This record gives sequence, C-alpha cells and structure tokens, in this order.
Amino acid sequence: MKIFKSANKAQTGQIKLLTVVISLLILTLSFSKNAMAQEKIQMVRLAKIKVNPLQLDKYNSALKEQMTTAIRLEPGVLTYYAVADKSDASHITILEIYADTAAYQSHIQTTHFKKYKETVKDMIKSLELVDVNLIAAAKKPDF
Amino acid sequence: MKIFKSANKAQTGQIKLLTVVISLLILTLSFSKNAMAQEKIQMVRLAKIKVNPLQLDKYNSALKEQMTTAIRLEPGVLTYYAVADKSDASHITILEIYADTAAYQSHIQTTHFKKYKETVKDMIKSLELVDVNLIAAAKKPDF
Repeated sequence: MKIFKSANKAQTGQIKLLTVVISLLILTLSFSKNAMAQEKIQMVRLAKIKVNPLQLDKYNSALKEQMTTAIRLEPGVLTYYAVADKSDASHITILEIYADTAAYQSHIQTTHFKKYKETVKDMIKSLELVDVNLIAAAKKPDF
Repeated sequence: MKIFKSANKAQTGQIKLLTVVISLLILTLSFSKNAMAQEKIQMVRLAKIKVNPLQLDKYNSALKEQMTTAIRLEPGVLTYYAVADKSDASHITILEIYADTAAYQSHIQTTHFKKYKETVKDMIKSLELVDVNLIAAAKKPDF
C-alpha cells in the first residue's frame, strides 16, 4: 500500500512537471506566433504605372482624389506616396501601405476606388504591382 | 503755356499708370516664381538597390542605422522608406525625401553616410538612383 502511494506521488509529480512544460510550450508558441503576426500584418506595395502622356494631368488628378479620399474615409488605408520620374513624368511609382490584407480587400470594393479605376482605365499603358516588405521607415515628426 | 501744362499732366498720368502696371507685373512674376520654387524645393529620389543575398542581414542593419541617424541628426533629411520585394528580399527600393538639394549634398558628406557607404560597398551588386517629383502624399496622422 505504501509502495503504491509512493508510486502515485511520483506519478503526480511527473504529471505536474509535464503540465508546466506543456503550458510553457504553448505560451512560447503563442508569443512567437504573435511576434510573426506583428511583423507581417501590414500590406505594403509598390505600384509601377506607365500613363498615356497625353492624359497625364487627368490621371494625376484622379490619382490624388483617390488617395486623399481613401486616407480620409478608410481606417485601414495608412500611407500613399506617389512620385513621377523626372526624366519621364508619365512613369509613376506609388508606395501604398494598408493595415493588413483585409483592409486592402475592403479598399478595392469602395466607391472611390472603383470610380478611380473606371476613370483611368483607358489612360494606363501598363501596371506592375510589386508586393514588398517594409525594411524600415524613418521620418521627421509631421512628415 | 496752359496747353503745355495739360500735356504735361497727361504725360505724368500715363507715367504713373505705367509705373503701377510694371509694379504689378513684377509682383506677379515674383509670386509665381516663389510658387514654382515652393513646388520644386524638395529633392525626392528612388534608390533601387540589388544586394548580395548572402550579406542581406548585414546590409539591412547598416541601412537602418544610416536612415535613423540621418533623420535624427540632419534637419534637411525628411523621410526614408526602405522596402524589399517579397519575391526577392535582396531587391530593395528606398524612397528618400530631402528638404532641398543642398540638404542632400550636405548629407553625403556626413560621417554616418560615409560609414554606411564604406560598410556596404562590397555588399551591393547594383545601384540605380532615379530622381523623381512628388505627385502627392497622403497619410494617416502619426504614420
């Protein structure tokens, strides 16, 4: 009977140890999963667009309207920078940052985005979308 | 004598009118020149860099250090975004905004920029610098 009790105690000890180990394992996995999610959550993209030079002013107006409206109305649209090559202003690059892919999927369903797409569809000669990861951003306050 | 006086008055009137017109012209030209200078003052650039994939971690560390130091120490260095293609993290694009070309010229003479250049010189496979104009930027506050 005593032997049985000792065995039982030893078993209970082992079970307790095992529970602690498993709990720590789950906690570690959960933390590293969160860390990975944190790193990967934003959706960042470079859009490289060649516009019909004869329609550049109209295109730029439509682009500006789309950008400012999306930033104003959509919580998940975070940042846009649109630049044009000095050597050829019809070669445009847009840096786009969304909170996550869901925010982007929601964005392309909005009235203002659909209006932009419809307005510019015959102005665009080529469009290349490059998915990127943000290595780092550094800015002066208020920039 | 009376006729002469009248002619003189008329001439004086014309000269006054001419002076006003010329002054307005100079003022208008001066304003539009300022407006153009305002638009063109910032220097914006895309740096397209291909890095030796075996040295990518070291390169990214050096790049981050250069970016954060320049933003912290140099009044004329305004914005950096560095992104890496998802399909190939060794293909890097950096959006750089300086207050003006003088700020950029001063930047490339700094100790931290020279240290970065020296550190990465054997890590870089190709470097393309594309001067661009900012069409528009739109951001959430604090982004």
